[in-house]
Amino acid sequence: MTDAPFLALDIGGTKTALAVADGTSARAQRTTFATERTGPDTLARLLREARRLLTDRRPEAVGVSFGGHVVGRNVRSLHVPGWEDTDLFARLEREFQAPVRGANDAVAGAIGEHTIRARAGESWPVLVYVTVSTGIGGAILLDGVPYHGSHGLSGEIGHMVVSDTGLCSCGRTGHLEANASGLAIARRTAAEWLGAVEPQCDITARDVAEAARQGDPVAGRVLFDAGRLVGDALASTAALIDPDLIVVGGGVSLAGPAFWTPLIEAVAEKAMSRVRIDHATHGADSALWGAFDLARQAAEESLVA
Amino acid sequence: MTDAPFLALDIGGTKTALAVADGTSARAQRTTFATERTGPDTLARLLREARRLLTDRRPEAVGVSFGGHVVGRNVRSLHVPGWEDTDLFARLEREFQAPVRGANDAVAGAIGEHTIRARAGESWPVLVYVTVSTGIGGAILLDGVPYHGSHGLSGEIGHMVVSDTGLCSCGRTGHLEANASGLAIARRTAAEWLGAVEPQCDITARDVAEAARQGDPVAGRVLFDAGRLVGDALASTAALIDPDLIVVGGGVSLAGPAFWTPLIEAVAEKAMSRVRIDHATHGADSALWGAFDLARQAAEESLVA
Repeated sequence: MTDAPFLALDIGGTKTALAVADGTSARAQRTTFATERTGPDTLARLLREARRLLTDRRPEAVGVSFGGHVVGRNVRSLHVPGWEDTDLFARLEREFQAPVRGANDAVAGAIGEHTIRARAGESWPVLVYVTVSTGIGGAILLDGVPYHGSHGLSGEIGHMVVSDTGLCSCGRTGHLEANASGLAIARRTAAEWLGAVEPQCDITARDVAEAARQGDPVAGRVLFDAGRLVGDALASTAALIDPDLIVVGGGVSLAGPAFWTPLIEAVAEKAMSRVRIDHATHGADSALWGAFDLARQAAEESLVA
Repeated sequence: MTDAPFLALDIGGTKTALAVADGTSARAQRTTFATERTGPDTLARLLREARRLLTDRRPEAVGVSFGGHVVGRNVRSLHVPGWEDTDLFARLEREFQAPVRGANDAVAGAIGEHTIRARAGESWPVLVYVTVSTGIGGAILLDGVPYHGSHGLSGEIGHMVVSDTGLCSCGRTGHLEANASGLAIARRTAAEWLGAVEPQCDITARDVAEAARQGDPVAGRVLFDAGRLVGDALASTAALIDPDLIVVGGGVSLAGPAFWTPLIEAVAEKAMSRVRIDHATHGADSALWGAFDLARQAAEESLVA
């Protein structure tokens, strides 16, 4: 390998992050911007920011975490229109004259969490990663390799059934995402605070977490309920696939004990066999660091080829 | 291979079945007896019945489906004491001078259902088998090979969380088995029929299914609730591991539309992606037929060795 830097991109529905790091140092230069309204606009901004971070260097390889569906070289987002027309990966290859490898953000997050543990000498043959953020996603790694299922739709922990109520983003009822995602937490709290069924306000899950820390009983109860339901889904996950480790990341995982304690207690009460539950080592940045690992994989493959 | 017959054993908590078939014919001679109170007593009876079925032939190989834990060559049942002291597989090898291969009943059932579909030319890379019987078990086959998880405890669909109530055989609360197994169906119906919380009676899930067919409203409602909850668990299974096919077997799967219709409707309403749900082709005998497949595998391996 050369000492050209790696470029990591984490394209989310609300936030897009970039980082550049060389092959030998953990120090990275990074930047973040609010995702634009369309895929093409976000890509244009992304390319400008990447050129700025890279100065005049060509990256060794590019890794992409994409918040949406990634099937082969095709990408599609339910939140941001137009990505399907950007030919994202080919465009990045042409722009940077470097190999590109991408995955959806849950898979990228799982890879980021697996890699940092493997470097610490830990072995987790069956690792599940769950991200509790605006939505709830997940991925399964078997010996470090993503398990994709029959149609590339595995690991969708946000769409496990945990309740009789709650209309999900996918149109079904009772899914975990409809009851315990950052969006659900914000909406439920706002509805009680403001007395509105469809609150038109800017309350976020971060505000709810802060209010719970200050002792707000509504915020505390909403986070408690969300934590229990995530714990229920993880207990079911443990029963079905018997993982060594479940890593929980995403912004809501950092909401503190109001969310984390009921989650851990629900798993302890309801999982038939013991399973270890850890916070994400990379906090809310698992997918960005996973994108670095994808870039390294792309570089290694291009050396072989 | 010779034309010596294969011996298949399906050792359950309440019923034990044996079958003998030659390598070229689907015709099998079979027999069934009520499982004795201890492992050693059941084994003694099993050996007598097997010798009778085999007349004076030595089997080419023996396949064993065991209703309990199978870890390596060790077996253990939560329902029938003493199996752990029988050295079951070694004893069968000595008795019949033939190779023996065993698996727990859910894995054996999954293999039986996979094999009959593979022979029909069907390909199901990710197949989940669920048995709804006295208890509820399950197994996952990836490309026809059992997925065991980290501690050999995968596929435990009966211990997925589907409710806030119902004390499970494993001591936890809210599991599918506690709410939708044959035992749970019988107990709930009996409690309403007889007005007793802990009914001491011989009502079985089979009686409940028959009553539902005759229009009994209590039986119909209990089976409806059980079918919905199994459907919820299968929808969650689909979200997590994205199988091509889920096969539902075991005695309760034959209870008729009172159970099957709400199951299918719950999956259709709640599963994010499409998944095919089939009745077990072997009905309640999937594990016994899987034991034949295990015997064939044992014979092939002993030819290689």
